[in-house]
Amino acid sequence: MVAEIICVGTELLLGDILNSNAQFLAKELASLGIPHYYQTVVGDNPERIKQVLEIAVGRSQLLLFTGGLGPTPDDLTVETIADFFGVPLIEKPEIIADIEYKFAQRGRTMSPSNRKQALIPETADILPNRTGSAPGIIWLPVHNVTVMTFPGIPAEMHLMWRETAVPYLKNGGWCSETIYSRTLKFWGIAESALAEKVDSFLNLTNPTVAPYANHGEVKLRISARAESSAAAKNLIEPIEQQLRQIAGLDCYGADTDTLASTVGQLLLDAGQTLSVAESCTGGGLGAMLTGVPGSSRYFLGGIISYDNRVKEGLLGVNPQDLAEFGAVSHQVAKQMAAGVRASLNTNWGLSITGIAGPGGGTDAKPVGLVYVGLAGPHGDAESFEYRFGDARGRDWIRNLSSCTALDRLRRKLLLAKV
Amino acid sequence: MVAEIICVGTELLLGDILNSNAQFLAKELASLGIPHYYQTVVGDNPERIKQVLEIAVGRSQLLLFTGGLGPTPDDLTVETIADFFGVPLIEKPEIIADIEYKFAQRGRTMSPSNRKQALIPETADILPNRTGSAPGIIWLPVHNVTVMTFPGIPAEMHLMWRETAVPYLKNGGWCSETIYSRTLKFWGIAESALAEKVDSFLNLTNPTVAPYANHGEVKLRISARAESSAAAKNLIEPIEQQLRQIAGLDCYGADTDTLASTVGQLLLDAGQTLSVAESCTGGGLGAMLTGVPGSSRYFLGGIISYDNRVKEGLLGVNPQDLAEFGAVSHQVAKQMAAGVRASLNTNWGLSITGIAGPGGGTDAKPVGLVYVGLAGPHGDAESFEYRFGDARGRDWIRNLSSCTALDRLRRKLLLAKV
Repeated sequence: MVAEIICVGTELLLGDILNSNAQFLAKELASLGIPHYYQTVVGDNPERIKQVLEIAVGRSQLLLFTGGLGPTPDDLTVETIADFFGVPLIEKPEIIADIEYKFAQRGRTMSPSNRKQALIPETADILPNRTGSAPGIIWLPVHNVTVMTFPGIPAEMHLMWRETAVPYLKNGGWCSETIYSRTLKFWGIAESALAEKVDSFLNLTNPTVAPYANHGEVKLRISARAESSAAAKNLIEPIEQQLRQIAGLDCYGADTDTLASTVGQLLLDAGQTLSVAESCTGGGLGAMLTGVPGSSRYFLGGIISYDNRVKEGLLGVNPQDLAEFGAVSHQVAKQMAAGVRASLNTNWGLSITGIAGPGGGTDAKPVGLVYVGLAGPHGDAESFEYRFGDARGRDWIRNLSSCTALDRLRRKLLLAKV
Repeated sequence: MVAEIICVGTELLLGDILNSNAQFLAKELASLGIPHYYQTVVGDNPERIKQVLEIAVGRSQLLLFTGGLGPTPDDLTVETIADFFGVPLIEKPEIIADIEYKFAQRGRTMSPSNRKQALIPETADILPNRTGSAPGIIWLPVHNVTVMTFPGIPAEMHLMWRETAVPYLKNGGWCSETIYSRTLKFWGIAESALAEKVDSFLNLTNPTVAPYANHGEVKLRISARAESSAAAKNLIEPIEQQLRQIAGLDCYGADTDTLASTVGQLLLDAGQTLSVAESCTGGGLGAMLTGVPGSSRYFLGGIISYDNRVKEGLLGVNPQDLAEFGAVSHQVAKQMAAGVRASLNTNWGLSITGIAGPGGGTDAKPVGLVYVGLAGPHGDAESFEYRFGDARGRDWIRNLSSCTALDRLRRKLLLAKV
């Protein structure tokens, strides 16, 4: 039994949005062991949606549609599918009630146009949408064809997939073999350097090991096929241990771990607290740290010292040093870290000051020059210089700065443990 | 003449990578005025690639392939296309020479496997790849069908597209019309409500108006087809004016504008400054504001008061109010805003305190409850309550909180202008 992904939306044909829904479903199908050989994107056009359906029905048994479930006239997915199979739409009162309730909760009244979202094929089941107005359908319109529809909004689609579609597919015997993957995550090593270190692992067949790189981070994905996820995990575990041993400190975690969650766990283990002082990242480092649920146990807060007056007034940076060395300097990074540590009374203070661009660079201090400051439990402060360059832009420099600062603290905490 | 995008690669079917190549080509085709109605993803499998070709040849005249040009045995795109059209491959000495030269430049020797990349259909032209080893082809295998192949590596593909494919298409008369789009952006109105307000515009044919929603934001895209982009802009302008008039304050900008950049411009216009106090967003609001280049002209910084001790110590929040009303309350939001405004000596102070979850919610104060505080130039402070719910998770609540806070300030600044 083979699945097929069909994403509906003229915005995809215009390149307005990236098709992350296809990637999400592809990953999920792979992890469930359900093969799929084709993905199609088609616009909000009934004739062309029907042509795509005609082709898909001839080669696949599970058709997963995303997009085109909204309340506006160009949202045509469900009615076109119903029309293709010659089944009338009926209005489901329970959907109307659900949409009305959701609008009321936000203090709004349901628009008449939302009634359209309550129309589903007579013989289809509702695929509930807990967070948005548009429900999907699960439908077996003809023998050996199962159709599921999801809204195009990723957060709604993910939840509907996980809460309803996955249990449905598992119970329905769709998932024969399991593919289980584990992704090791690295910071501070280039993809090619890591690939060379783990060269001999890249030719394995089960599990397989594949390298990826993105946003300065490198990953190794270990994937195993087996009858059960327990059996697949047993195949993966010894490989993971060997890879971690080879990579040493450069491997910071796996799967859902982030640099921020890893640092958080190390702080919890040490019973220590952290505060941050941010200039060019403007709060991004704090946002990363507090992206981790439970981070209030070790992260107390910070000072966004975007303006030099804040560096002086709230962090106690020496005005003479600011004038002499500039805000982007070893001296100021150290004083920012020490200042926030003292002000918020934490064990560690971590700071970032740099030139994120696109303007503001000079020959001596080009865009991409960043200093990370770290003040430790013994009152000592150190600083580190990075030159990230200007080729990849402001967001990239800011993101890399926050990650690099976290990695600095991670290595420090790890070495303190030994 | 209609184009079709065909992306080849098992990694796309496994969800290992996001299909940014399809988005890139889609955008480019739209801007050149070349229509395309379908995008297909297929694995590295000759039989299935041929099936996709069979379908594409029947409905499109320009077939754009990405992926599968590499040196490894699973890279099959070019030989499969040649086989489909029954044309033999020949080895091009100039490609071999080019690959050898590129390897030599990096101090390496060409691998025997790279010879494969020099095989192209006898009657095809080379589509040069200046930065990588795999060239593409431009080929008219049968009447009314043009095939182009590109490597899957985005940077190489983009360059080949711009340097060779675009001039080829322009000279070949493919680009008769230009499509020009402008996207209006809205905050504080639901997609369905906006669609009803602008109902009569959604049936226009040139320009077209289409609504989108994502992350709490709603957009209207106005797209016009015309002989030149100037002519297209002339079609769009009166529609944009009418839509803005209907939407009023809910429309915050267009195209690359963000809530943060709009707020920034309003602050600049007013000659005023801003500081922020953040609890549950942990720096995310500051990061949004400083994501705008030049934001140092109006944004001085802020205090991340994740822990209540920081709210008391640095923001001057009354400990009794913290105890009596809790950190997530009207009272504390107002005091945070007033406190940061006073501490950083800015015209405006904007604060956020809330429960981002997943833990920490109670019946009285559930996950998703957020207060925004705003202290203004006259020393007055007000606060606003939001209930975002817990269904979409921590990141969503935090992002929505920052956007909502910015929107509050935006409306205040706009009203102050009148």
